[in-house]
Amino acid sequence: MTDRGRKRGGGRAARQASLNTPETQSVPYITRKVPVYEVLDEEGLALIEANAETILQEVGVEFRGDAEALELWKDAGADINGERVRIPKGLCKKLIQQSAPAEFTQHARNPARSVRIGGKNMVLAPAYGSPFVRDLEKGRRYATIDDFRNFVKLAYSTPFLHHSGGTICEPVDLPVNKRHLDMVYTHMRYSDKPFMGSVTAPERAQDTVDMAKVLFGEEFVRDNTVITSLINANSPLVWDATMIGALKVYARNNQACVVSPFCIAGAMSPVTVAGTAAQLYAEALSGMAFAQLVRPGAPVIFGTFSSSMSMQSGAPTFGTPEPQLVLYIVAALARRLGVPFRSGGGLNSAKIPDAQAAYEAANTLQHAMLAGVNFMLHTAGWLEGGLSMSYEKFIMDIDQAGMIHSFLAGVDLSENGQALDAIREVGPGKHFLGCEHTQNNFKTAFFRSSVADNNSFEQWEADGELDSAQRANIIWKKMLNEYEMPAMDPALDEALLAFIRQRKESFPDASY
Amino acid sequence: MTDRGRKRGGGRAARQASLNTPETQSVPYITRKVPVYEVLDEEGLALIEANAETILQEVGVEFRGDAEALELWKDAGADINGERVRIPKGLCKKLIQQSAPAEFTQHARNPARSVRIGGKNMVLAPAYGSPFVRDLEKGRRYATIDDFRNFVKLAYSTPFLHHSGGTICEPVDLPVNKRHLDMVYTHMRYSDKPFMGSVTAPERAQDTVDMAKVLFGEEFVRDNTVITSLINANSPLVWDATMIGALKVYARNNQACVVSPFCIAGAMSPVTVAGTAAQLYAEALSGMAFAQLVRPGAPVIFGTFSSSMSMQSGAPTFGTPEPQLVLYIVAALARRLGVPFRSGGGLNSAKIPDAQAAYEAANTLQHAMLAGVNFMLHTAGWLEGGLSMSYEKFIMDIDQAGMIHSFLAGVDLSENGQALDAIREVGPGKHFLGCEHTQNNFKTAFFRSSVADNNSFEQWEADGELDSAQRANIIWKKMLNEYEMPAMDPALDEALLAFIRQRKESFPDASY
Repeated sequence: MTDRGRKRGGGRAARQASLNTPETQSVPYITRKVPVYEVLDEEGLALIEANAETILQEVGVEFRGDAEALELWKDAGADINGERVRIPKGLCKKLIQQSAPAEFTQHARNPARSVRIGGKNMVLAPAYGSPFVRDLEKGRRYATIDDFRNFVKLAYSTPFLHHSGGTICEPVDLPVNKRHLDMVYTHMRYSDKPFMGSVTAPERAQDTVDMAKVLFGEEFVRDNTVITSLINANSPLVWDATMIGALKVYARNNQACVVSPFCIAGAMSPVTVAGTAAQLYAEALSGMAFAQLVRPGAPVIFGTFSSSMSMQSGAPTFGTPEPQLVLYIVAALARRLGVPFRSGGGLNSAKIPDAQAAYEAANTLQHAMLAGVNFMLHTAGWLEGGLSMSYEKFIMDIDQAGMIHSFLAGVDLSENGQALDAIREVGPGKHFLGCEHTQNNFKTAFFRSSVADNNSFEQWEADGELDSAQRANIIWKKMLNEYEMPAMDPALDEALLAFIRQRKESFPDASY
Repeated sequence: MTDRGRKRGGGRAARQASLNTPETQSVPYITRKVPVYEVLDEEGLALIEANAETILQEVGVEFRGDAEALELWKDAGADINGERVRIPKGLCKKLIQQSAPAEFTQHARNPARSVRIGGKNMVLAPAYGSPFVRDLEKGRRYATIDDFRNFVKLAYSTPFLHHSGGTICEPVDLPVNKRHLDMVYTHMRYSDKPFMGSVTAPERAQDTVDMAKVLFGEEFVRDNTVITSLINANSPLVWDATMIGALKVYARNNQACVVSPFCIAGAMSPVTVAGTAAQLYAEALSGMAFAQLVRPGAPVIFGTFSSSMSMQSGAPTFGTPEPQLVLYIVAALARRLGVPFRSGGGLNSAKIPDAQAAYEAANTLQHAMLAGVNFMLHTAGWLEGGLSMSYEKFIMDIDQAGMIHSFLAGVDLSENGQALDAIREVGPGKHFLGCEHTQNNFKTAFFRSSVADNNSFEQWEADGELDSAQRANIIWKKMLNEYEMPAMDPALDEALLAFIRQRKESFPDASY
């Protein structure tokens, strides 16, 4: 599971896990070598784009509780009525295309782990935002900062996630107004991969930027993007004061915002694919254009999170065909617009990491891979519609993330890849196991799953009839056991801790 | 799960299953409205094609134990050396393109269930060939004719499989030399969907054709395709006497052969994607061209079944990236050649219907859907590398098959689909649940899973914390309970049974 080659523990389970360890070359991010898939043709995409412009001009978008936002839109030429902002057709697109970068680098404190977001690149990040965690032994429970730390360690330990994520789970044992400091510190200290910042209040966004200045140096942060953050629309067609405030902080500091309509189709958007896609596009256009009004050139990522809905209960449903179709359309729109795209992940509404969880997760992961997602949040761990972060599912999902690496590497058409000589050497009715070509390509030939049991039924029985979740349980414990914290200059660590202390002391206790 | 609307049984589980019943319109087969995905460009595909022709000419293919086959190839211009047939470049392609149909109809005894194989169509068939079955209560055991009958009933009962399949499981309680008669009869009697014929010996293929003549009438069978059968190559590059013999029977009778290299890459083909694709294409070309030598115009389906291999144990592995890449390449080659394509299915090597089974199955099902598979064998039930047929996984997989229907229906770009008026009506910050557009599209809006639990955690707890397999267990029992045999003229039934009696009596008892 990790390519860092630590000493191995004892026991059969450990031996098994060790045998399964893939010899995967760690890459800071994926660069795809296969085409994207699209469901709509030029005409269909142009129709959705035109509808989004109609929505922006006729219906408009509400920017709530932020007078400055309304001023900025007014100056840009929008029609303001109360908090409703009606934006002339083409304005958002123009604002975005004249200044937002098509791709950008998010720097990590370890430069070898900096990621390139946009273009043909794909960056995989863990799940985000769940108040609960779950594992096989302790079941479902509120998440704590210990859980948060564990998941940062796990995300750091796998070669198949490129990003440490943000609110991997919500550490509800810490005060609401202070926990962002601990979360950001945990990403900085326990990992050296890039991370996401707090968005739950403008001042928490500012704390994130200030901590980044301690970590990277003030000058570096001024000139470079070191934080990505998740700015969700309140679909339909509303940006609230918290999100606007956080966006303004990050954009002003040249840090990246994932501008993401979060949408349960049927409730928060029309019950149809084309209607949902047009609304999502309108929402994203308005958010990304606003970031350009705040600071021209601020890096943005066009995000979508779309699920369908049970028409019986109103519950969101995942891994179903309609959100996949939305995903392909919106990914194509992002390419046409010329901005990086975020979506996908191991989405599901299962309560445990069973077959439902896996079918639904795979159904999103594989399509996100083909759609050309540049930044994939929720890649690993998601359960229960995002309410729960599962230790075992995290392991299963990073296995799938590994497969995405292999698929997007495409087809080797070199002479070695063509293998004509091997076919000539072996000939009809023989086998390829012993031939030179097989021996030479042995190690890199096939993706090797860490979780799958490919043994015979009899061997599986003899090994204790473990299911996939039980095998994953062994693996995450082994990974945590073998985790080694990346080095950090003690003075830098102390500076970060001092900043946190000073900030925490500034809050009255009553604000817990 | 079924759209036939029977009376419902009692109990909470039954009520739940009933609530989940999707209101899906049954279609005899899918016609795709979205594009296919391809991984290689023109240059890459041409390279694989050229390599396959090189393999056929330089290495050749063995046609074993069938003197007539060698004669036919000799007359066609191939170079014969023992049983090795070296085929001049371009000959196979020419033979196929001048006579094999690009698409064809396989007739069912119920004309409303006849399927169109090829082109933009997709026909979903259950899994094939497992000696074992498995369910939650009785675990894993040898399959019997009762199990076979159960799966024929289940495949008949779901609107999401279009085909009754062939050896859904191997009824090992019946004598090897007679069981094909019972299997074919079961497909004919307990279903009215199209089916597959026996291939385990030429005389069993002939029995299948003769029974089809009883069922459809001699003249109809002469002029129409009513049987599809599975002819596997022994990779690398061997056709054995049994397969050649069965192919000859079906081709001579104008019945369809799925000409399928069955290949575990790394053992039976090179360890690389491009090498495996070239070999598979060479094998399929030789088999399909041979069918045209036997009878010009005989319908053929270009089949592939490709898995990767654990380089540690030699065990086949499924749902991994490399076979997906092979699948996309070979599907494109079939389109370029102009013949229907078979691949895909819910492939996996899990021993139980857990998360491993589901990830691996989804990873093949979704890619087969996008690749443009025309005939998908193994759609439902497959477990344990094909050694076991799972009742619960069958239910999970047909749920996925339902989703394939919805995805391939594509995006509704009508005015209703665009839903602009709904967005105008609802406006920012409101919800779409009550609006007229949502009400009007309520029933057809989203695919509704029968197996997934989308309820809250608390509701799921109150419902007994069932996992996906436990819910599937309830559903298959309900489906079997509600199964109603399709009508058949008693005289026809008696004629089929009389044929079977006569054939069985012709075997000496010792041949059990």
